[in-house]
Amino acid sequence: MRRVYFDNNATTPLLPEVFAAMRPWLESNVGNASSIHHHGQEARAAVEAARESVAKLFGCRPAEIVFTSGGTEGDNLALFGVLRPGDHLITTTVEHHAVLNAAEHWRDSGSHGGDVTFVPVDGCGLVDPEDIWRALRPNTRLISVMLANNETGVIQPLAEIGKIAAEAGVEFHTDAVQGAGKVPLDVRGLGVSLLSISGHKMHAPQGVGALFVRKGTKLQPLFHGGRHERSRRAGTENVPGIVALGKAAELVREGFAKGDDARVAAMRDRLEQGILARVEAAGVNGGGASCTIANSVPRVPNTTNLYFDHIEGEPLIIALDLKGLACSTGAACSSGAIEPSHVLTAMGLGGERARGSVRLSLGKQNTVEEVDFALDLIPQTVARLREISPTWRKVTVK
Amino acid sequence: MRRVYFDNNATTPLLPEVFAAMRPWLESNVGNASSIHHHGQEARAAVEAARESVAKLFGCRPAEIVFTSGGTEGDNLALFGVLRPGDHLITTTVEHHAVLNAAEHWRDSGSHGGDVTFVPVDGCGLVDPEDIWRALRPNTRLISVMLANNETGVIQPLAEIGKIAAEAGVEFHTDAVQGAGKVPLDVRGLGVSLLSISGHKMHAPQGVGALFVRKGTKLQPLFHGGRHERSRRAGTENVPGIVALGKAAELVREGFAKGDDARVAAMRDRLEQGILARVEAAGVNGGGASCTIANSVPRVPNTTNLYFDHIEGEPLIIALDLKGLACSTGAACSSGAIEPSHVLTAMGLGGERARGSVRLSLGKQNTVEEVDFALDLIPQTVARLREISPTWRKVTVK
Repeated sequence: MRRVYFDNNATTPLLPEVFAAMRPWLESNVGNASSIHHHGQEARAAVEAARESVAKLFGCRPAEIVFTSGGTEGDNLALFGVLRPGDHLITTTVEHHAVLNAAEHWRDSGSHGGDVTFVPVDGCGLVDPEDIWRALRPNTRLISVMLANNETGVIQPLAEIGKIAAEAGVEFHTDAVQGAGKVPLDVRGLGVSLLSISGHKMHAPQGVGALFVRKGTKLQPLFHGGRHERSRRAGTENVPGIVALGKAAELVREGFAKGDDARVAAMRDRLEQGILARVEAAGVNGGGASCTIANSVPRVPNTTNLYFDHIEGEPLIIALDLKGLACSTGAACSSGAIEPSHVLTAMGLGGERARGSVRLSLGKQNTVEEVDFALDLIPQTVARLREISPTWRKVTVK
Repeated sequence: MRRVYFDNNATTPLLPEVFAAMRPWLESNVGNASSIHHHGQEARAAVEAARESVAKLFGCRPAEIVFTSGGTEGDNLALFGVLRPGDHLITTTVEHHAVLNAAEHWRDSGSHGGDVTFVPVDGCGLVDPEDIWRALRPNTRLISVMLANNETGVIQPLAEIGKIAAEAGVEFHTDAVQGAGKVPLDVRGLGVSLLSISGHKMHAPQGVGALFVRKGTKLQPLFHGGRHERSRRAGTENVPGIVALGKAAELVREGFAKGDDARVAAMRDRLEQGILARVEAAGVNGGGASCTIANSVPRVPNTTNLYFDHIEGEPLIIALDLKGLACSTGAACSSGAIEPSHVLTAMGLGGERARGSVRLSLGKQNTVEEVDFALDLIPQTVARLREISPTWRKVTVK
């Protein structure tokens, strides 16, 4: 069966060049990057070359990069590494659970934790920087606002929030897991002091990520042990994973130069507009017609989140999967959850519309032909599910 | 140049079968194990098959396995996941830094931490279970004693300590990073409630590990986020790494059946005895002639830690490396440290002898021919370094 993968916000396929780069570290080289012999020195050189590549992607110095096991570790290290008991944290209601649940843990930890303000978003999923400003308290230590939402792709006004953080003298973290590889990251321009990414969202493997920690930002480690990563993250370096992340970062930079993002955006727009033209009672969550400021909300180029009234998202993605199209109802990390998406709910969608929403996320390996396959399949499948929907019949009978 | 790798306690080469098992997850399969579509289901099945394989290695149920990013995370998760503020921890002076520094952090965390007793070892590196018993307090929550020491290979009397822990109603963790793949692990026989391993010490890749958590043991997660690993470890599963760990666990089980451990022990003994026969003023740290109970101390089959009086370990391993033999002065994680090994110091070695010690650690990929290469090279190199040693000249002049 033909299989089309439109779930790149859950995980991306490894690019062949990334596999080629990491392969020697799996197949022949053996090295602990802390060992002082030949093999260790080779591993150390490979890790440091990867660090330089990731630093170039971020626009920072190599010494400001800490390699992690992925996005969740990076987010948790940023929050728990910076916060001190009694501190106030400002974050948003639409963060990934890696930030949201860490923030709730902070709030619920009694004297070992502190306070949290969850700033809301508007109907388009946007945070108002004024709300961040108003949430500031004398004991605010950290603001954490995601770069791009994993479910809708909506990009937050980080540069404005960065200015507020700088003015208030507060640390500023962004979960850039869904931004990396999709929009340029410029830690100085964004004004962030911490930025976390995950390899497997940008065509590197699962199990590796990176955290930017601005020079001067005090960070307590989550793991205690060896003096790896300048004592900011103990544990033997994952050399193949780090080498892969370095290669993926290089390919991202080259991709921007080649216009990969514009090509992906054109495919996403063809898909989104094609579906809206073919399916009634459907719309875009975040950035589209459902927003008050139509089409003016910035989104990453690869993501569209669509609602289809009168059907549920889960049967739809299962039906699409049976025909070869992989997509999702939202975050893979929340799959199986009974509650509707916290992101869509925070944007003001009712439970029914939130449950009837589907995320299609493209990657640079996808093709226009695959988009057209989905454009045939999705309207048919929605129509078939609506045929057996009791509320849809009521609407059409009227 | 011919290269012989005798630093398998730092990291092991991936076995070809392990690379073959993980390769599809890097080259063609794309799946987030939490996604509900076809790709996600394939990834989930692969992760659960690996979990069963690791559970078989441990002699536990699959639900008792938590996949981690490695040994340091496993050790930290075991300690910080079990301890509650005010709790007392018992550990030893010869633990890996992933336990030792986590324990020190606990001791130094004021009201958020608790007390720690560091139980000493004898001249052979052995913990006396009686000392563990005597260290127990009413608020002792956890005992953490390593299975096998990473520097000397000495195996601790875990089953006896497990009985003490059971009698006292205290949780019992073992850092089995250097035991896995070298000696059979049987969590029920050892009486442990937590056991951590690292993939890259048993021919799986860096960046993956596992923690056994006995059913009923209450564990707080270190990472907050998605509901992965039954909410014990948030973060997208590292599918290729986990698949590799599952395959490596299977190969370890098969290896024991084929007598890999006896073959490795024979090579280690040939190496150790060969060196002692050829080099004067040298000896074994832990388990050998330097111990009061000569040759009666159990060690893992692959490790020998040797002292060479009148020379320093670091110049020796650099000289050996220049001739193609990779080995180390101790833990790679402590490379570059000025202090002598905390393990050898805890065993009563003076600074000079501790600094003059070298660890040779074999793997099942090594050959007798490689042992003989080392048996030629090491005595020559020691002799050459002693020629320029001021204290050696004094000794020989006498």
